[in-house]
Amino acid sequence: MMQKTEQTIVRNEEFITKAEELMPQFFEQTVQPKHIIDVIPDSNVIHGWKVNTIEAADNMTNKNYGKGDTVVLDFGTHLVGYLSLNIKPIGSPPDAPLHLKLTFGEMPVEMAEPFSEYDGWLSSSWLQEEVMHIDVMPTKLELPRRYSFRYLKIEVLNTSPKYRVSFENITCKTVTSADVSKVKKLNHEDSLIEKIDQVSIKTLEDCMQEVFEDGPKRDRRLWLGDLRLQALANYETFETNDLVKRCLYLFAGVPEENGKVAANLFIAPSLIADDTYLFDYSLLFTTTLFDYYEATKDIETLNDLWPLAYKQVELALERLDDNGIVKDDTTWWSFIDWHEKLNKQAPSQAILIYTMRRASELAKIVNSEKSHLLSEKLQDVIKATLFHLWDEDQGFFVSGENRQVSWATQIWMVHAEVFDSENSQKLMNHLLATRPEIGLTTPYMYHYLVEALLLVGEREQAISQLKAYWGEMIKDGADTFWELYDPENKDFSPYGSYLINSYCHAWSCTPTYLIRKYDL
Amino acid sequence: MMQKTEQTIVRNEEFITKAEELMPQFFEQTVQPKHIIDVIPDSNVIHGWKVNTIEAADNMTNKNYGKGDTVVLDFGTHLVGYLSLNIKPIGSPPDAPLHLKLTFGEMPVEMAEPFSEYDGWLSSSWLQEEVMHIDVMPTKLELPRRYSFRYLKIEVLNTSPKYRVSFENITCKTVTSADVSKVKKLNHEDSLIEKIDQVSIKTLEDCMQEVFEDGPKRDRRLWLGDLRLQALANYETFETNDLVKRCLYLFAGVPEENGKVAANLFIAPSLIADDTYLFDYSLLFTTTLFDYYEATKDIETLNDLWPLAYKQVELALERLDDNGIVKDDTTWWSFIDWHEKLNKQAPSQAILIYTMRRASELAKIVNSEKSHLLSEKLQDVIKATLFHLWDEDQGFFVSGENRQVSWATQIWMVHAEVFDSENSQKLMNHLLATRPEIGLTTPYMYHYLVEALLLVGEREQAISQLKAYWGEMIKDGADTFWELYDPENKDFSPYGSYLINSYCHAWSCTPTYLIRKYDL
Repeated sequence: MMQKTEQTIVRNEEFITKAEELMPQFFEQTVQPKHIIDVIPDSNVIHGWKVNTIEAADNMTNKNYGKGDTVVLDFGTHLVGYLSLNIKPIGSPPDAPLHLKLTFGEMPVEMAEPFSEYDGWLSSSWLQEEVMHIDVMPTKLELPRRYSFRYLKIEVLNTSPKYRVSFENITCKTVTSADVSKVKKLNHEDSLIEKIDQVSIKTLEDCMQEVFEDGPKRDRRLWLGDLRLQALANYETFETNDLVKRCLYLFAGVPEENGKVAANLFIAPSLIADDTYLFDYSLLFTTTLFDYYEATKDIETLNDLWPLAYKQVELALERLDDNGIVKDDTTWWSFIDWHEKLNKQAPSQAILIYTMRRASELAKIVNSEKSHLLSEKLQDVIKATLFHLWDEDQGFFVSGENRQVSWATQIWMVHAEVFDSENSQKLMNHLLATRPEIGLTTPYMYHYLVEALLLVGEREQAISQLKAYWGEMIKDGADTFWELYDPENKDFSPYGSYLINSYCHAWSCTPTYLIRKYDL
Repeated sequence: MMQKTEQTIVRNEEFITKAEELMPQFFEQTVQPKHIIDVIPDSNVIHGWKVNTIEAADNMTNKNYGKGDTVVLDFGTHLVGYLSLNIKPIGSPPDAPLHLKLTFGEMPVEMAEPFSEYDGWLSSSWLQEEVMHIDVMPTKLELPRRYSFRYLKIEVLNTSPKYRVSFENITCKTVTSADVSKVKKLNHEDSLIEKIDQVSIKTLEDCMQEVFEDGPKRDRRLWLGDLRLQALANYETFETNDLVKRCLYLFAGVPEENGKVAANLFIAPSLIADDTYLFDYSLLFTTTLFDYYEATKDIETLNDLWPLAYKQVELALERLDDNGIVKDDTTWWSFIDWHEKLNKQAPSQAILIYTMRRASELAKIVNSEKSHLLSEKLQDVIKATLFHLWDEDQGFFVSGENRQVSWATQIWMVHAEVFDSENSQKLMNHLLATRPEIGLTTPYMYHYLVEALLLVGEREQAISQLKAYWGEMIKDGADTFWELYDPENKDFSPYGSYLINSYCHAWSCTPTYLIRKYDL
């Protein structure tokens, strides 16, 4: 039997109520399929599957299907919403139920490779397919679950020898809490930047639901690491700032007894803090509050949430060893990136410093007595970091017992401003020139890479990295940006199969923030 | 593409409205599983599968299930209704949907042999299984479809590594339009007769829904051949005579342009006559009306429906050739029985005579001008039958070009009273002594066999046939009587597999009628 991790939650009902009152308004659209397609093998495209457009989806009205027949539809772009379709019997009255299978895919590969072959460590239950019996026809089938998809495969498993079926008025009612009318037109001269900006915004739009979800296909949950980046992109686009506020109050509503904020929350059937705590994600509560205050100057929320924001720093400081360095052992978990071999010590140390700087500023704004203490501590931690983690010979910060040199460590040290601007710039250039083996595996870390380059003034490098990474995703067919993308290994998945990857993922939506905030 | 058979229906809205106004009252019960079981191979029992009781179903509360786990429940008897169950996550909050499969079975074999192996000619969509995803837990799962089952297999296809599930308050809300309080206690000294009576009544009860269904698992439709027998059993038990009336008006609501009554009707989403017409079934409309009038003396309904009842005889008479014998060719279909080699000519001829006798009586009651004509015609048809179909040398009636001797022909000729009582008795005894090769394959025909024996005064033979056939079914585990049963070949199915057979079937419910009507 599964054992629940020891966890004692102290519910703050006042905060939970505030969060509930901030339930967003929803925007709906009805979208119909554009084309009937098939998906054919092609070793030159990602995952080896290419879309072949056959004819306009309007022609569905004239077609009908019997036992064993399949049709694949392309809705033209990524959608998040609810599917409905009319099913009409053709021939004799249906003398047996219709046995139907629907498969939803964000990517062509999901239409081509059977889900039954998936054998990764994430639950196969995320794969979007439904098998059902329809007893009475004609009928309007309205699926109760929400799907994240561009492609829909309809398979008639069985009818009876006496009838076939036709499918009409196939419709997706999309849902989002993003108000697209709020987004200012970019009008960028570089059409690729323009396109990257649009796809970023679409990604964010499709992840904005009752909360900022990490991915509408898989997880569908409010994670702090994703929230932080979504919020930044949101301030530059939809400005649905109350949704950020709602999410902050949700996290603040269910902290651990000691004040630690969970890495993610479950919203339905009721608000529950997941029993996963990540060193970096808890600290990102504080930085997200900082960003939110910067964007809104909402002092009331800051005053409400400051004690908990400070608490995250205080708890993180408790992990420092006698040298003033984050203890690295087997009992903790800091996310940073999906790289299997990445040592988390030094990047976590950097995120602590990064967060302390922001906590220190917030402390001043709320006139906290902790302000002085935080400033002092910040200098101590920076000093310890330089003394113990900086390797002058290599010109890199090192992490863990084996003094690992990783991209993530250098990037976060730049964000933490451990060096002055000049030395940070040197560090970034050294990183790009040396290209250590422990690289980046997620758009999440690529965001921090590009922003680090911007912070040190390497604007051209930043633009080139942004275009190389997110631009390549677009060339590979992204309608929304993906959870995982390694241009060198396009089949990469940390879960055992690209079938379970999310192809619309919040932490990939930041190019619009980078483009608009830094006027790229 | 399937072609709909040419069919022009003339709707009689007055009759349809009368039928709609007779929508029956429903009786509900909540039933919970009795035992956790497994189904184990045993070559000594029917289909080769035996139930092994493990423990009380109450113990479900203490159990939980993860990926790949299965539990099989036994509800103790046959049920028709709607399933609900509470699903509770155990462990961490569910971080992935639950992927669940439910399989419903009337017989142990349905819990043991995978439905995917079924490859018969009836649609596999009748096999009762559902695969579904549950996104939010805890939840009460309420399945919208109606099932016919005693056994329920729950398979957890996937959860996630972080949680398992438990199932609580598993409940079937049964539905029937039969009022069990109306049934008089039998108190028979022979406990097997007593048991056969009870199982008959349970069979009828489970088939009584918005209409008299043929089988609650498969077809679920109003067929004339089944209706006729259900109505007879109903008069002796539930006396829900308005349901018979409703069904008669439904058939009368959608006849063919020429007046022919369809073999069966679809009720949902709207009343539709199936494009199947059977020579014998159309005539059974007339006999069912006759039986209904006998039971109720409802002259208003008789007056309403008489013209259509007469029409069936008139249409059947049009099939007579110059010799006065029903034409046997490839363009018609008369059901009679499922026997593959059975020639339908002579039994159809007998059913025509049987019906004409009843039509003739009804004609007198409604003072129809057709009364005289019917009496005359009846004598002509009997005379032709004796002349052309009676084979003095063999002592049997013969059917078709190849002068086939079948059980069905002799049985129906006895019902038709083509001979006087003494000669009919001789014919039945000759039949039982000679045992021609073309035998009976369905309880439907067994009913007519037993009743024929009773009609000729062979009471002991009748009882012995009744006990041998339906009693053996009980020994083989019937909670309700089956659609198909051949004591010599217990795996018999006309559809390619016993998995798709219906194990609660209306046309098998008549022993209660035979026992009570003839005071066996």
